[in-house]
Amino acid sequence: MVTRLEDRVERDQCVRNGNGLVHFKDIANQDELYNHARLFSHLVIEPGRSIGEHTHEHETEFFYILKGEGLFHDNGTDVTVYPGDVCATGYGASHSLENVSDKPLELVALIMLE
Amino acid sequence: MVTRLEDRVERDQCVRNGNGLVHFKDIANQDELYNHARLFSHLVIEPGRSIGEHTHEHETEFFYILKGEGLFHDNGTDVTVYPGDVCATGYGASHSLENVSDKPLELVALIMLE
Repeated sequence: MVTRLEDRVERDQCVRNGNGLVHFKDIANQDELYNHARLFSHLVIEPGRSIGEHTHEHETEFFYILKGEGLFHDNGTDVTVYPGDVCATGYGASHSLENVSDKPLELVALIMLE
Repeated sequence: MVTRLEDRVERDQCVRNGNGLVHFKDIANQDELYNHARLFSHLVIEPGRSIGEHTHEHETEFFYILKGEGLFHDNGTDVTVYPGDVCATGYGASHSLENVSDKPLELVALIMLE
């Protein structure tokens, strides 16, 4: 089955008390993922906006960077991330992600449940 | 944890007797996905190349189109797919995907196990 962008859920959401709203283009919902994952989405973070810091227990979140540049807070260490990078956070670790550039930061996010 | 492209597995593989090789940039492996998924990868299909037709039972494969244009064979129906489209195949359905354009076709593929 093919679904076009306009047929799927798009939303703007403040994520974990980050700065401003993050745009989500959901790729599949939790039911479609057999309840083994709770998010599979294309995220667009505009300049100056961020996903606030939070931890992941009993699940792992993957950010696959598609476009732009971000400041990724990786369980206590700041790392600048670029297209092609994978940021994996689970097992009680924390992360945040901020767009400190002047262009949109785009990524695919997947949260796999344990 | 952040991993750069050069630290991860890249491979060129003939997929289900398709035309030529498809380039895979793996995002996470099956262990990292808690064995609930068996593929999470960025695929690049060059012009004229394809993923051959095959079915998915007890699992669903998602193609999230990032760049280019492809001819998606959707369980008997041909559909031209573009960036932003999601192709989902499971429950015994078949699919194939061919790059009939003159530019690379790029997508994120996820195979979720039931």
